[in-house]
Amino acid sequence: MILEKNDRLILITNDDGIYAPGLKTLSEAMEEFGKVVLISTIESMSGMSQALTVKTPLRVKLVEENEHRRIYACNGTPTDSVKLAVNQLLERMPDWVVSGINHGANASVSILYSGTMAAAIEGCLYGINSVGFSLSDFSRAADFSTCRKYIRCVMQKIAAEPLPAGICLNVNIPSLPENEIKGIRICRQAKGNWKEEFEKRKDPMGKTYYWLTGMFQNHEPDANDTDEWALANGFVSVVPVTVDMTAHSYLQKLRERFAE
Amino acid sequence: MILEKNDRLILITNDDGIYAPGLKTLSEAMEEFGKVVLISTIESMSGMSQALTVKTPLRVKLVEENEHRRIYACNGTPTDSVKLAVNQLLERMPDWVVSGINHGANASVSILYSGTMAAAIEGCLYGINSVGFSLSDFSRAADFSTCRKYIRCVMQKIAAEPLPAGICLNVNIPSLPENEIKGIRICRQAKGNWKEEFEKRKDPMGKTYYWLTGMFQNHEPDANDTDEWALANGFVSVVPVTVDMTAHSYLQKLRERFAE
Repeated sequence: MILEKNDRLILITNDDGIYAPGLKTLSEAMEEFGKVVLISTIESMSGMSQALTVKTPLRVKLVEENEHRRIYACNGTPTDSVKLAVNQLLERMPDWVVSGINHGANASVSILYSGTMAAAIEGCLYGINSVGFSLSDFSRAADFSTCRKYIRCVMQKIAAEPLPAGICLNVNIPSLPENEIKGIRICRQAKGNWKEEFEKRKDPMGKTYYWLTGMFQNHEPDANDTDEWALANGFVSVVPVTVDMTAHSYLQKLRERFAE
Repeated sequence: MILEKNDRLILITNDDGIYAPGLKTLSEAMEEFGKVVLISTIESMSGMSQALTVKTPLRVKLVEENEHRRIYACNGTPTDSVKLAVNQLLERMPDWVVSGINHGANASVSILYSGTMAAAIEGCLYGINSVGFSLSDFSRAADFSTCRKYIRCVMQKIAAEPLPAGICLNVNIPSLPENEIKGIRICRQAKGNWKEEFEKRKDPMGKTYYWLTGMFQNHEPDANDTDEWALANGFVSVVPVTVDMTAHSYLQKLRERFAE
């Protein structure tokens, strides 16, 4: 890959691993915009959130390179991957970090657990324009092709005008035939939580172990400005995400409580 | 442990493991307020963020029980620990989730990587009043005793009036002798990021590997309303943290950009 001075350099990662079809679709969609470098793991890293690898060494391997792109496999989390690429592998700071296309939605509070969105947040912390894409379909046969149109639309907006500092985008695409998707909605994160149901089993030695399962509960199914509403009603949801977790609306009240 | 109807039930966890001195101090400080159940890992789980264990089974063991408290060891992340306790181990929903005292500060964007704060956020997602405590001292000889006074003060405020839904607290305590701590400041999360410096090494087989190191950069060292400023100036910082990552201030502008 030859990076010219005017080329846009795009770092791509995901949490479903280097062989995931969503990563391939995202990479193909990005080649229109610049030179792409992919970095991901061999196996999937779902639910890793913003986790860092601090107890085991990180390893990385260049597995493919051609005129347009370069692919690295590494053994870290999505956040590790972004850090490694930015600090050790890329010839310069990337212009964009794009992550996904995740196999399954990352709407509402799922953003807090998502490795895909963590990679976008990590890019954002470096001051890079960053977007995470997810398709609301967990099935093996998920069709990522409908995502292209919306990926293109979102990235064209960013190409025209960068995002503000400290803000990245969380884009979720409904699992529908292209002609049934009604367009893009700018949304806020829906209020909700996961109702966990652990599966309790016995191993062959008679010892108990648990598998985490669970179901999402939307606390405001009727609000029509949330990402969950958009997805349920055939729209692509775009949520601007901040790296500032301060509850600004509660600062003054909390100051008063501690002044008592 | 006998849980009476009027007892406050307090779930305690951390990301430094069950034998960490900070967990012991926090547990002792909490016994004044109710019956405590501790759950943590044998080894430390630093930098795990809100990660979930989805590929390996979770196991948990009751390792100690007396009149006042119960201790479980598990093999999951801090977030797994809260989920397991709430869903499988506790006789009822806990009144509080408290996490820490972390060995090292979790101010500014470190909240995004912190397992300690992830546990508090997880409690908050269940609608439980939750607080993460950290001491700004990474050394083995860290003195957690000065934390007691401030833990007591914060929890008394919550006992008097619960936190609003979707908000938990991130409390960082400076590593200073008790008489040098100037009091509590209610703060916002400082803008900053980690400047990573990987250590690149060769293993005995001649293959390259990396260790993540790094230094925090405060982007606004002069702002006197941030958690970083409070810690650097001898105050305990208390940041109200929201589980809503939407950049609300940018919603309208983004809507206009996509309407063009």
